[in-house]
Amino acid sequence: MILLDGKKVAAEKRAELRETIAQLQAAGKRAPKLAIVIVGHNPASETYVANKIKACGEVGIEAEKIAFEADITEQQLLAEVSRLNHDATIDGFIVQLPLPEHISETTIMSAIDRRKDVDGLTPENVGRTVQGLPSIISATPRGIRELLAYYQIPTEGRHVVVIGRSNIVGKPIAMLLMQRPYLSLPSMSAASLGDATVTICHSKTRDLKSICLTADIIIVAAGCPKLLTADMVKEGVTIIDVGINRVDGKLVGDVDFENVAPKAAYITPVPGGVGPMTIVSLLQNTLQAYMLKGER
Amino acid sequence: MILLDGKKVAAEKRAELRETIAQLQAAGKRAPKLAIVIVGHNPASETYVANKIKACGEVGIEAEKIAFEADITEQQLLAEVSRLNHDATIDGFIVQLPLPEHISETTIMSAIDRRKDVDGLTPENVGRTVQGLPSIISATPRGIRELLAYYQIPTEGRHVVVIGRSNIVGKPIAMLLMQRPYLSLPSMSAASLGDATVTICHSKTRDLKSICLTADIIIVAAGCPKLLTADMVKEGVTIIDVGINRVDGKLVGDVDFENVAPKAAYITPVPGGVGPMTIVSLLQNTLQAYMLKGER
Repeated sequence: MILLDGKKVAAEKRAELRETIAQLQAAGKRAPKLAIVIVGHNPASETYVANKIKACGEVGIEAEKIAFEADITEQQLLAEVSRLNHDATIDGFIVQLPLPEHISETTIMSAIDRRKDVDGLTPENVGRTVQGLPSIISATPRGIRELLAYYQIPTEGRHVVVIGRSNIVGKPIAMLLMQRPYLSLPSMSAASLGDATVTICHSKTRDLKSICLTADIIIVAAGCPKLLTADMVKEGVTIIDVGINRVDGKLVGDVDFENVAPKAAYITPVPGGVGPMTIVSLLQNTLQAYMLKGER
Repeated sequence: MILLDGKKVAAEKRAELRETIAQLQAAGKRAPKLAIVIVGHNPASETYVANKIKACGEVGIEAEKIAFEADITEQQLLAEVSRLNHDATIDGFIVQLPLPEHISETTIMSAIDRRKDVDGLTPENVGRTVQGLPSIISATPRGIRELLAYYQIPTEGRHVVVIGRSNIVGKPIAMLLMQRPYLSLPSMSAASLGDATVTICHSKTRDLKSICLTADIIIVAAGCPKLLTADMVKEGVTIIDVGINRVDGKLVGDVDFENVAPKAAYITPVPGGVGPMTIVSLLQNTLQAYMLKGER
């Protein structure tokens, strides 16, 4: 059993980013810049935003936090999105979710210019991803692909079972792994993954166990501790555990790790698996937006 | 075995459309209007466009054909798309594909205002469909849903196998049937379908037969005659055959109909199954765009 060490891979990816950005600056270019919009004072959101800003600093991405009180109107927030869309010094920006109830997340997300949508959550980016067009891929699916590519785990022709159908994980990772690779590169890169037979399971799925038993790769993003147990997987399976649950004060995933791990060829730990890859994906997306912009 | 009679259902849907539009006009509103842009003289495209215009006429939708020679530039075609986006007398429009090689279909499609995108093929509409937001759904997936709903074939918790991963059929129908229904209505409507466990198979899938044997519903859109044979399906399966192939001058689908039909609970014929539903979907989409516009 090989542990898919997201912490280690993320550190390497950060080092790569740091070097690329240092080279750009050595060549007289400006650093990439990310803006993070936060509304209100949700403690979890505050922590996430602080972590993202810290991560930016570590690789040389400039980060600007733009904070609004919870009573900002949808109209005012839309105006800020529009301003950021047009601000040439900002390469990408995110609006930290959740938003207060009087603001439609859908309306706000849809207003973000897809070229600056480094969370990859605008309908246009999602549609482009589904259609196999160049797009910005949302953080967790991008991180999962990077992890699979790093460990040279092929997906072509293999049966991938995705458990969970969220807009931020289940649906996009299913679409990415199912379709023709965007790039066919000689060595395996994240963009060369795809061509898998993909089954999407969720709360309404009837016989999850028998479906999982046919899977070569299982991606669990259901938010349910110990959902995937040892009797549900075949020997040699690859397990990607996206779950983050707090049980008895301890962070656990959606997989009964202790009993599933001995049967797995590869498995992500929680914490230290997909989690660290997610933040690094945001940094990669910001650099991608910067590179595509051509205004440096 | 019950034949899913697309010809009959499409006729009923056309009658409904005709009545709705007649009522609108009786109330002093203008008729919905569809514009169809065609470039060059591809004979198949000419036929498709003629059929669409005829179908519009049958239900009272005004149709305008806008024809360009094959030497139109991408820039000029983009200008026409922009003009149609802003023309308040046009409720929806389509650009008939394929386009000449010197014009990027992606660029043209992406330029269409999603609210007038009655083919449902812009990345934004596709992304909205994937995210479960109100959207215009492309013709064939919409037609398949209408057919399932008409015959009251439930999808919740059932295993749907989609064979083929095209942008116009495989990907969108997989996404639609997998996700939470957009509307939970007391009686079954197309919009209340969903919640299925969906597997997407394609040319790289290794053991298609064993996957199909577990399917409650199989949707075949691979463009390969007799791809699905009797040994690949279980008793009582529902079969939706999207294939249109010409073999020995005869129109056939992707299913070995003669041998598969006896095992099926429901099956679409080819021709007369999904095909007739596709054109009616375009008409429904045009009315939907008209209704949403609020300018009558």
